[in-house]
Amino acid sequence: MTDTVSITLADAEDMLIAVFAAAGVSPVAARSTATALVAAEAEGQGGHGFSRVADYVAQVRSGKVNGAARPQIVQEAAAAIRVDARFGFAYPALELARDQGLPRARHAGIALMAVGNSHHCGALSVQVEKIAEAGLIGLMVANAPKAIAPWGAREPFFGTNPIAFATPCAGRPPLVIDLSLSKVARGKVMAAKKAGREIPEGWALDAEGHPTTDPDAALAGTMVPIGEAKGTALALMVELLAAALTGSAFSAEAGSFFTADGPMPRVGQTMIAISPEATGDYLPRVSALLEDISAMDGARLPGTRRRAAIDAAHREGLQIPVHLMDSVQALLP
Amino acid sequence: MTDTVSITLADAEDMLIAVFAAAGVSPVAARSTATALVAAEAEGQGGHGFSRVADYVAQVRSGKVNGAARPQIVQEAAAAIRVDARFGFAYPALELARDQGLPRARHAGIALMAVGNSHHCGALSVQVEKIAEAGLIGLMVANAPKAIAPWGAREPFFGTNPIAFATPCAGRPPLVIDLSLSKVARGKVMAAKKAGREIPEGWALDAEGHPTTDPDAALAGTMVPIGEAKGTALALMVELLAAALTGSAFSAEAGSFFTADGPMPRVGQTMIAISPEATGDYLPRVSALLEDISAMDGARLPGTRRRAAIDAAHREGLQIPVHLMDSVQALLP
Repeated sequence: MTDTVSITLADAEDMLIAVFAAAGVSPVAARSTATALVAAEAEGQGGHGFSRVADYVAQVRSGKVNGAARPQIVQEAAAAIRVDARFGFAYPALELARDQGLPRARHAGIALMAVGNSHHCGALSVQVEKIAEAGLIGLMVANAPKAIAPWGAREPFFGTNPIAFATPCAGRPPLVIDLSLSKVARGKVMAAKKAGREIPEGWALDAEGHPTTDPDAALAGTMVPIGEAKGTALALMVELLAAALTGSAFSAEAGSFFTADGPMPRVGQTMIAISPEATGDYLPRVSALLEDISAMDGARLPGTRRRAAIDAAHREGLQIPVHLMDSVQALLP
Repeated sequence: MTDTVSITLADAEDMLIAVFAAAGVSPVAARSTATALVAAEAEGQGGHGFSRVADYVAQVRSGKVNGAARPQIVQEAAAAIRVDARFGFAYPALELARDQGLPRARHAGIALMAVGNSHHCGALSVQVEKIAEAGLIGLMVANAPKAIAPWGAREPFFGTNPIAFATPCAGRPPLVIDLSLSKVARGKVMAAKKAGREIPEGWALDAEGHPTTDPDAALAGTMVPIGEAKGTALALMVELLAAALTGSAFSAEAGSFFTADGPMPRVGQTMIAISPEATGDYLPRVSALLEDISAMDGARLPGTRRRAAIDAAHREGLQIPVHLMDSVQALLP
């Protein structure tokens, strides 16, 4: 067991805002980024939470992300908005896109929100849930530095390119789905490497395209997609929607989210919001469906563990490993 | 080898139009349905082609599908259209939705096209490609009679709930992606049953949730989703977008696409069209990405086999098994 230290969500946010502000991040971006990282940590996605803080700060300092950037609206239509993140953090750009896009979706029935020249967007669940909390159905895709090979090839080309979905329901919190198109997250391979453990067969392929249990060989190779050729087809779809449609770098061109040097990530994110008013009884039928599933012997609803983690975090605060908390506190002014 | 007979696409369409007209299908629905079945056959998706004709006719005769139905626009917004198929064939309803939706997408940047109280929609590739041929990016989801269990459960609940995507590209035909969320199509299990063959392990589970190679046990059980829990999460997402959003039956409530008796399918389909004008250089960048993938050693682009099949069908006509052609010709007046 790793020793942990407990911190409330509010205190965690204040701490991260102070850390980012000290690094020269604008107040809007510092707040938005802190909120997103704390929300990811709260839902049990530590890989998109506190563990990113030191990398983000190092990237601000090296200029790989522009902490002072103000996201800018570069195109508008009746049901679409395009935001240029201007090589700053993704979170304030996503907020601006939603601020502009959600009213359009309410009015027009659907809206497209495209964010380009962006950066790591963390847990998509956190972003897409905000659309559902606003009473709309949310879809989101994002591209990410290359990790998956096109079907039949051996070199990484697509990111793990996540797809997320959230919907409001009658009488219960939003249903939130968030999944990457690799069988397991790349972070799990990195964690195994750090711990000196092998990885299970089926997670990754080496540079020759052969299954491997060696995390180093896996990191030099590719992640196995879900559903074989189907997963790579979905990864290509996400690539086009998240990168081509937003004018951003394809995954094969994108700089790492982790290192302070090298090219900027310059990835893209696309969100779609849909009004559930299209039918008279969408919300109660969603709830009825989820209840039917819950009533089935052994069935697990997506997001159940996430919801429990969020509830626990609100009740008991975040449990942050001591060494991680130390490294973040060392960044305080 | 099965003996086959060759027929041109135009002759095949004329024949199917005559078959459906003789069964009492309206002229608009007969043409639309014939065109869709021939297009599916041409791209090598025989399971959505000629093999459906006798079932469709039997369902018209039994009243399980209303051949005389006129799809109706039941809701409109600036970027959304909802069409009620009125328990008729899916194809004319999907056409009406696109006729109304695509101009909206061009103007508003994106449009939602929801089709409810619908029927089997065949190969989604055929439907979504029409959006790309109109110069827009197309997304489509459909629900289908139950075949996949919620994660952890043993009983079928979700359909194989396909997801399809098509995009225009500069200087090449549209890229088309179409995949069901089961590892393999249910039709493959039915084909194995007919042929008296076992199925490979990993395709399906029996009614107890155990892997099976017996096609009968598989048909009494469930299809294995792609990506384990991820596939069932995507199936739930499709269920909500295709059925709940269109006011249609959930997969667990939907009647069979194959039998002439039992409840109507009453499934739903949702399409989204996006204008690529959101960025200045979408079309050439898509082409460049596809060329980069094609240039990778061993890589296969989605849709390559489909495109070759379509080209061959246009050149040499459809190759229809003799017994299937006989059964369709027997339905001619």
